[in-house]
Amino acid sequence: VDLCGTLEVEDFGIQSMPDASPTKWHLAHTTWAFETFVLAATLSHYHAFHPQYQHLFNSYYYTIGQMHARPERGLLSRPTLDEVYRYRKHVDEHVTRLLEAGCDEHTASIILLGIHHEQQHQELMLTDIKHVFACNPLRPVFREQRLPPAEPVEEVRWVAYPGGLCQIGHSGTGFAYDNELPRHKCYLEPYRLAHRLVTNAEHLAFMADGGYERPEFWLSDGWKTVQTESWAAPGYWELRDGQWWFMTLSGMRPVEATEPVCHVSFYEADAYARWAGARLPTEAEWEITAEPLPIRGNFVEANTLHPVAHKSKGVTEQPLQMYGDVWEWTASPYTPYPGFKPLPGAVGEYNGKFMNDQRVLRGGSCATLQSHMRSTYRNFFPPEARWQFSGFRLVHDG
Amino acid sequence: VDLCGTLEVEDFGIQSMPDASPTKWHLAHTTWAFETFVLAATLSHYHAFHPQYQHLFNSYYYTIGQMHARPERGLLSRPTLDEVYRYRKHVDEHVTRLLEAGCDEHTASIILLGIHHEQQHQELMLTDIKHVFACNPLRPVFREQRLPPAEPVEEVRWVAYPGGLCQIGHSGTGFAYDNELPRHKCYLEPYRLAHRLVTNAEHLAFMADGGYERPEFWLSDGWKTVQTESWAAPGYWELRDGQWWFMTLSGMRPVEATEPVCHVSFYEADAYARWAGARLPTEAEWEITAEPLPIRGNFVEANTLHPVAHKSKGVTEQPLQMYGDVWEWTASPYTPYPGFKPLPGAVGEYNGKFMNDQRVLRGGSCATLQSHMRSTYRNFFPPEARWQFSGFRLVHDG
Amino acid sequence: VDLCGTLEVEDFGIQSMPDASPTKWHLAHTTWAFETFVLAATLSHYHAFHPQYQHLFNSYYYTIGQMHARPERGLLSRPTLDEVYRYRKHVDEHVTRLLEAGCDEHTASIILLGIHHEQQHQELMLTDIKHVFACNPLRPVFREQRLPPAEPVEEVRWVAYPGGLCQIGHSGTGFAYDNELPRHKCYLEPYRLAHRLVTNAEHLAFMADGGYERPEFWLSDGWKTVQTESWAAPGYWELRDGQWWFMTLSGMRPVEATEPVCHVSFYEADAYARWAGARLPTEAEWEITAEPLPIRGNFVEANTLHPVAHKSKGVTEQPLQMYGDVWEWTASPYTPYPGFKPLPGAVGEYNGKFMNDQRVLRGGSCATLQSHMRSTYRNFFPPEARWQFSGFRLVHDG
Amino acid sequence: VDLCGTLEVEDFGIQSMPDASPTKWHLAHTTWAFETFVLAATLSHYHAFHPQYQHLFNSYYYTIGQMHARPERGLLSRPTLDEVYRYRKHVDEHVTRLLEAGCDEHTASIILLGIHHEQQHQELMLTDIKHVFACNPLRPVFREQRLPPAEPVEEVRWVAYPGGLCQIGHSGTGFAYDNELPRHKCYLEPYRLAHRLVTNAEHLAFMADGGYERPEFWLSDGWKTVQTESWAAPGYWELRDGQWWFMTLSGMRPVEATEPVCHVSFYEADAYARWAGARLPTEAEWEITAEPLPIRGNFVEANTLHPVAHKSKGVTEQPLQMYGDVWEWTASPYTPYPGFKPLPGAVGEYNGKFMNDQRVLRGGSCATLQSHMRSTYRNFFPPEARWQFSGFRLVHDG
Repeated sequence: VDLCGTLEVEDFGIQSMPDASPTKWHLAHTTWAFETFVLAATLSHYHAFHPQYQHLFNSYYYTIGQMHARPERGLLSRPTLDEVYRYRKHVDEHVTRLLEAGCDEHTASIILLGIHHEQQHQELMLTDIKHVFACNPLRPVFREQRLPPAEPVEEVRWVAYPGGLCQIGHSGTGFAYDNELPRHKCYLEPYRLAHRLVTNAEHLAFMADGGYERPEFWLSDGWKTVQTESWAAPGYWELRDGQWWFMTLSGMRPVEATEPVCHVSFYEADAYARWAGARLPTEAEWEITAEPLPIRGNFVEANTLHPVAHKSKGVTEQPLQMYGDVWEWTASPYTPYPGFKPLPGAVGEYNGKFMNDQRVLRGGSCATLQSHMRSTYRNFFPPEARWQFSGFRLVHDG
Repeated sequence: VDLCGTLEVEDFGIQSMPDASPTKWHLAHTTWAFETFVLAATLSHYHAFHPQYQHLFNSYYYTIGQMHARPERGLLSRPTLDEVYRYRKHVDEHVTRLLEAGCDEHTASIILLGIHHEQQHQELMLTDIKHVFACNPLRPVFREQRLPPAEPVEEVRWVAYPGGLCQIGHSGTGFAYDNELPRHKCYLEPYRLAHRLVTNAEHLAFMADGGYERPEFWLSDGWKTVQTESWAAPGYWELRDGQWWFMTLSGMRPVEATEPVCHVSFYEADAYARWAGARLPTEAEWEITAEPLPIRGNFVEANTLHPVAHKSKGVTEQPLQMYGDVWEWTASPYTPYPGFKPLPGAVGEYNGKFMNDQRVLRGGSCATLQSHMRSTYRNFFPPEARWQFSGFRLVHDG
Repeated sequence: VDLCGTLEVEDFGIQSMPDASPTKWHLAHTTWAFETFVLAATLSHYHAFHPQYQHLFNSYYYTIGQMHARPERGLLSRPTLDEVYRYRKHVDEHVTRLLEAGCDEHTASIILLGIHHEQQHQELMLTDIKHVFACNPLRPVFREQRLPPAEPVEEVRWVAYPGGLCQIGHSGTGFAYDNELPRHKCYLEPYRLAHRLVTNAEHLAFMADGGYERPEFWLSDGWKTVQTESWAAPGYWELRDGQWWFMTLSGMRPVEATEPVCHVSFYEADAYARWAGARLPTEAEWEITAEPLPIRGNFVEANTLHPVAHKSKGVTEQPLQMYGDVWEWTASPYTPYPGFKPLPGAVGEYNGKFMNDQRVLRGGSCATLQSHMRSTYRNFFPPEARWQFSGFRLVHDG
Repeated sequence: VDLCGTLEVEDFGIQSMPDASPTKWHLAHTTWAFETFVLAATLSHYHAFHPQYQHLFNSYYYTIGQMHARPERGLLSRPTLDEVYRYRKHVDEHVTRLLEAGCDEHTASIILLGIHHEQQHQELMLTDIKHVFACNPLRPVFREQRLPPAEPVEEVRWVAYPGGLCQIGHSGTGFAYDNELPRHKCYLEPYRLAHRLVTNAEHLAFMADGGYERPEFWLSDGWKTVQTESWAAPGYWELRDGQWWFMTLSGMRPVEATEPVCHVSFYEADAYARWAGARLPTEAEWEITAEPLPIRGNFVEANTLHPVAHKSKGVTEQPLQMYGDVWEWTASPYTPYPGFKPLPGAVGEYNGKFMNDQRVLRGGSCATLQSHMRSTYRNFFPPEARWQFSGFRLVHDG
């Protein structure tokens, strides 16, 4: 998919908040990662494409050197988009040549890391441009398309799991980030997991019951955020003549009752759970449940760019939508697994240093590449973040 | 101990930062808690001592009603100290009368909670007044006393623990906060815990090695804090003519090499551990280690108001200083135990709603009452907090 | 008058906003000024009362040295009030001795400046403690007293002045601040000045006509302030059950229709004038008008601590209330007079460096000493300030 | 001149600070002004080009309606540049048609106002894009051109003026903004005005004498700004290997000693003057001096986009560079002239409501159109603004 095909030159440069980056920056930064961690590290005579790109497109790798201030990524009209594309072409050619010439195992592993890194940024390009367009009163459309009519969903079924001494974390030979390692034991009490995600209809019931006005449902930090941000509904929702509308990458549409609620923060998910007399699953509960399931779902390849309603096909006791549609907030703070070791060198700054005040999300969303997903994958965002395709499901003690 | 005996009337009213409260407010708030949760809840004809105290001295209990803004506690010259003491006397008398008349089990449990609540605030009075005096260029002395000369300490010994399937959390009949419940299983890998706390000499070595200037040791949020706060040493340290001095409640004194480093944030403890090639223990590792140990140490009753150096007495393999001296930062985010249920009613706001972006500290400090401490006790503060008597010890994977 | 006689020890230490200072600080700072500019400058063997008071009680005289941060004046519980009174006694005795021994003309002029400086701070003590009490939900009373019932006022008469080439600024031998000098020529168009101040009833009419909701009446900066501060009425006004109340130093009372509107900012005065189709007078217009009038009025000696309604006594064409009751906002930015020279030395920092983004107020208020006032006196505050006793009158082009 | 000819599409959209606007926004806003104040006001059947442009491109005219938030102008990737050019074409054609059909006097005057408004924004496009490029570490060049070598300048001569009762303000039939009216009398003391602008060499001497480190030269607000902004040199200056460089629209170049100092704030001009024992002229002094001089100088038509050094040609006693090169800060706060009346209707919001906390600048700069300039022209900016081509000259009391 050419993700940028429908964008205008002007769209590529906007940074709508410090946490989101311009599309052009994503394009340059992922190229910078290949140039820095692969080409410059491997080729003794490699000459940087531009002497200042190392500064401009370094995100947060202090080991590499000082970086351009994150909130000012949107001030860079230069390099132009054309120049960035030339940069990408230049680096792509060199990496291809390196691969063709054959490279050692370490270099190959860094290239693989670079590819997964680029996949992450592809997803971020979608979530970030959605935020850009949401800041524009014209509400531009990213990609014109008719979304299928929303399907009905079933009543929630609570699928029981026995818990006990389990193992989570990556094992085997496939690719994984350092934060998924090592595989390790943990003890779980029995739990009963909702077979589907919480829906818009259910979230509307929470709202109707004063969900955003009653502090008793909220974590203290969450309640402060509700007040300072004047939250009264999920992100990208707008009230128009008494009806809730929702901004999608295909334009505004009325909120569909049966679709999974999306663009909610951890705080909202957690408050909803308390209101509902349930809780959010831990990441271990989620992983134990998801591990045996096939990695299928509404990923970016499905081209909806929107979470959709699901219904059980035939007789199954398995939870639905564990993969795709929305990233699922878990109750778990993002912390190192027992025995965690960051990758050596600058790439060790990729994950470990962010293990503070974030919550783990699992399963991927409609903006994630299917090939990027696995049961042990740990995504993480601050508890107030809403611009990802983030939703949740509930769990009960077993 | 009359904690306030050395204070001037003027000292009682100062709020030096939003997170700390005036001594007078602590006196009134703990009384308010008895009045609200015991007297008003129990005595059908109880008449509030003052109609607006419920608003003024409510800390964060939304179930009770709106409260005076936290950062403005220092603006209240009225009620005066005398009036607050009259308030305390009034409420104390009513509670005593209630106890004498005999009260039901629930009321008794709330009174017990109120006593523990008051013990916590006694400790906060000390840490808060220390912060007040540290903001005054005159560096007033809270209590004149000669501290004993610092003792030598031993090289760190790493005490090995087998881990495995363990149980932590409160059990039995004694008092515990809701956040220590329920007792539950968890799985630990083997670990080797330092037999003593990290010392000032060790922290000075970290500083000398560029500890506060090298981002590679720090969590990303920690590094930002170092920058914005211009941290270059622990809290209350001052460089005077090339020598580090340290503010104590008994005045300024040179930093003693063998004393435990104190008034460090979680960020600093965590950075130090990374620099030292070790890590911070989890709260489970700490609790498993501490459970069999006697609850003895340098608590507030010892009257030092200052963490001191310890040396093994005789042959022992047990860690020293698990209790008292300094609260020990653990690696554990403050989250609910599996099956956690907050207390019913307004007192349920006491602990649960703060389970976000805080880290657990264990063991009590030189400002804690010995009778307030137990192995399952979970204290919690934000990762940047330094005004508590907080230090740390290291652990290695076993 | 013993201005502090009704205060509790606790009241003396509160700083309710950076622009206002604790009473105790006022007491110490004015003493510091005598100590620094008189004693230390004159007596070769003078020994400072306390080595750090120079730092603590310097307000903004860089020539003297670095000063304690202004917003942190309320954090100083020490020196205690008793110590400050001892400081005052010590310095008073030395100054008295110096005067008795006879001093040169320059020293005498600095002592005179010190006395006027102290008079200013006496007024600020009143306005600042009013702000402190207004921040306390208990609304403490500064001085119990029954205010006389409000009188009726007359319809506004517009007193005509011919303008022309005039002279303003101080002349003669009495005391004046440097900013009142030199006396100089200026040209005025004819004008017609309101014979009385704008009243609460008139301001209520402005409010009823959407005064605080219609941007067309406001300077751009003023409108921003209305939005960010949510202004809907003058300072210290509170709506209780549909009736506007007003906090006075003698407690809350209903807003009296005929009293001068008070505690309004320049922005509000200016917006009101635009709404009324008039304008605020320049300071030259005010001074030319006031110069021939006797300096009589509702000053602090009258002991109302509150602006009152006035009525013409007998046949007079003269404007009323030019002196006392409320400081009158003028349209004039606070700038140097042609030929202005600041006093030499540190006392030159007293006035000149504040000649930016402030507006001139004239005439004194119910909190000003009568002996402190003169027709050339230039007070100045930022356009958003409301905690002074500030009101206004209107003028029309002639 | 096609001002935008050298810009890339990406350059048009950047907003580098709230006070500066994207080039694209300038293009759309000036068109919006014609559409709103001319077409919509005149043509009964005029249909807006786009229903939301009224919201997006309204700058600050509340009479017209709510506007897009100023700091968010850089978030609008749509409308694209092409769409904005279509908008301009559409409105241009309609205005042309209106003019060809003949329009009444009022409409003609509004069109004339619109043209002057557009001229102002042409200048702002230059100053704003300079700021954009200065925020980019690549320091892009707006227009490649070789600047002529700097000329020597003469020692300052002080040209004497008698002052007395003068008249300033616009008279006659040419165009003027409402803030230049009415022509009115004012009284001036004699003065001696510098015959040229303060140069870089002179400003370097101020810097070498600790100009940016000594509070005694600064207004209190100016000194605060020096501290918070860490000012140590004029805007756009950079120290490279011990040599000061200066960013121009033609790239970086070493600071030239004889060129007028530029991109200084009012605070710096005022501090320099105090250091030099002189002062800044009032706007009346400037206007009385400039009125008889021909409006010639280094304006945008000269195509330097940079202030240059001047030397007297032949024998002349007249001041040089009164027009062009740099806007000259005056000592005068921006206030209404006696008898000032804003234009009726929405265009009355153009000038009057900004008469607060700004200082008047006179004479135009190298970015101003010569035809836009006149001796009565009052420009105004906040005292801390540095992104305009702003410099100053000194004056002495006569």
